[in-house]
Amino acid sequence: MLEIPELRQEPCTKRWVIISPQRAKRPHSWGKEEGEKLQLPEWDASCPFCPGNEAQTPPEILSLKDEKGWRVRVIPNKYPALSPSEEPIQFEEKDPFVWLTGKGRHEVVIESPIHNNTWGNMGVRQMEDVIFSFLERYRALRDDKRVKYICIFRNHGERAGTSIIHPHSQIIATPIVPEQVRAEVEEARRYYDDRLRCAYCDVARKEREEGKRLIMESEHYFVFAPFASRMPFEVWVIPKRHNPSFDYISREEEKDLALVLENLFRAFYEGLSDPHYNVVFHSAPLRDSCEDYYHWHIEVLPRLTVQAGFELGTGIYINTVYPEEAAEYLRKYIKS
Amino acid sequence: MLEIPELRQEPCTKRWVIISPQRAKRPHSWGKEEGEKLQLPEWDASCPFCPGNEAQTPPEILSLKDEKGWRVRVIPNKYPALSPSEEPIQFEEKDPFVWLTGKGRHEVVIESPIHNNTWGNMGVRQMEDVIFSFLERYRALRDDKRVKYICIFRNHGERAGTSIIHPHSQIIATPIVPEQVRAEVEEARRYYDDRLRCAYCDVARKEREEGKRLIMESEHYFVFAPFASRMPFEVWVIPKRHNPSFDYISREEEKDLALVLENLFRAFYEGLSDPHYNVVFHSAPLRDSCEDYYHWHIEVLPRLTVQAGFELGTGIYINTVYPEEAAEYLRKYIKS
Repeated sequence: MLEIPELRQEPCTKRWVIISPQRAKRPHSWGKEEGEKLQLPEWDASCPFCPGNEAQTPPEILSLKDEKGWRVRVIPNKYPALSPSEEPIQFEEKDPFVWLTGKGRHEVVIESPIHNNTWGNMGVRQMEDVIFSFLERYRALRDDKRVKYICIFRNHGERAGTSIIHPHSQIIATPIVPEQVRAEVEEARRYYDDRLRCAYCDVARKEREEGKRLIMESEHYFVFAPFASRMPFEVWVIPKRHNPSFDYISREEEKDLALVLENLFRAFYEGLSDPHYNVVFHSAPLRDSCEDYYHWHIEVLPRLTVQAGFELGTGIYINTVYPEEAAEYLRKYIKS
Repeated sequence: MLEIPELRQEPCTKRWVIISPQRAKRPHSWGKEEGEKLQLPEWDASCPFCPGNEAQTPPEILSLKDEKGWRVRVIPNKYPALSPSEEPIQFEEKDPFVWLTGKGRHEVVIESPIHNNTWGNMGVRQMEDVIFSFLERYRALRDDKRVKYICIFRNHGERAGTSIIHPHSQIIATPIVPEQVRAEVEEARRYYDDRLRCAYCDVARKEREEGKRLIMESEHYFVFAPFASRMPFEVWVIPKRHNPSFDYISREEEKDLALVLENLFRAFYEGLSDPHYNVVFHSAPLRDSCEDYYHWHIEVLPRLTVQAGFELGTGIYINTVYPEEAAEYLRKYIKS
């Protein structure tokens, strides 16, 4: 068991982290203390996302239905971070300040009619519907020329920033490229220019080769705890095929992604007792070709610890669990 | 009352934020619901930082004492994020990964012998001792040539990442310059190269001129809610004199800083009912002269909301309170 802290650098982003296990509980204790599988009903009369309460949400943008009713609904967020107004975006300037009217899209993907479903227990069929909906909306939002970036994310649990329990993800389309995304793409470009290879391809190949941080491998994806994990049990899902953008995935990759996410999140659910987490899809900016060097992927950030002043002030996360131990632990809950 | 979301860019760092008040409670409601002034004893037998329990902590590095006993103690963190070992730092490489043995310093400043003191109620004299201790330690740590950056920070409350209630701050000295610090310095350099003026000086001057985000002004400092505040009630304290590094402050600036912080944190304590927050001192890297363009300052980040997937994935914070409203609200609690 390694006990001396390490400073590790993420090869793709060049972000440093401190891995300091002395400050940690041992991995096997996480499951017992953190998260608790909530005992929830299948239907909650007071939940705006439950069947029967559809009138409490804005009209739906997309819905997947069968004879039993809807399986997934996509709606505009009732309290959007960015306004969907069609008016042109205004850029304002009053030296040294610049700002824009906050136009964009903010949608909610209600992932199941069943109130107590979550990615950890919904099963593969439902997960396929969720991913299909993400793709449909990503492709539709891409057509709006004012949109420069699309972020698909999922907040699970209060510590991850959600207040609504009913299973849902969110999509925000922004009229700017976030500077963190610019930095990520820029680092990937530098790596490519130095070696004529994609950083993410290199890292994924290495993770498979070393194996100790690998959690699972499917036909189309690698799943591993990244070398410089920022948080205990951080997980990356990286497609094997080099491809900058989520919406360019094939039908087979789409199907396989459902299998992979179902397996991974069931492992989280069982192994860590339904921990709070964020999921973020990292995909290339929309109107900025970076085919050679960017590689879309999914980052899963469990919120078992709190980011404090040091993290906020320096960007260096202090992680108390070695990713090698996290991977070893999670592998036990993966179905092969 | 502005109601359309805005995307604002921080001029010093170029970070974008979304300010989306529709998602907020009104400012006047913060004080009542968030935080609650804990009813705590002045002394807690089970607290390792309380007088009488000094043997429970590592031996002290610094202590300020008078006939009644110690007023401030600085100790090594018992569970350090970085190891204080004197051995040389080892840089390791196994392409594409690089890492270092995690050497550095991690100290705790116990800010008062009184268990239920906090920056919001400790008074100016005690605050002077705290700042004096920060300076002493900063100056001492600077002498270790392996140290490249020193971060002074304070985590107040569970949502800000602390588990110990007894008033304390922390100092971490790292053997690398954090990349977020590099990026901040780099942006300041670009601004300077474009205009031959310091970005922070420009912003502070503008904030005073516009006044609507200004919270207070002392002889040596401006205190304001930054234009692109990431969080509700974010506050920056910027010294009037252009100076890249905290430890270069004069005796008068040191004294005045105690007055300013006491006043500001009392306002937080009263106006927002002792909210959870992080404080971070932003000072230049130690061995990287950036006198012309970097400007040390303090950032205060209240943790009234939770950073979710969108923030983690894009770096764009969604803030629900206009800084103009936050400043107006806080001004009412500032003693003139």
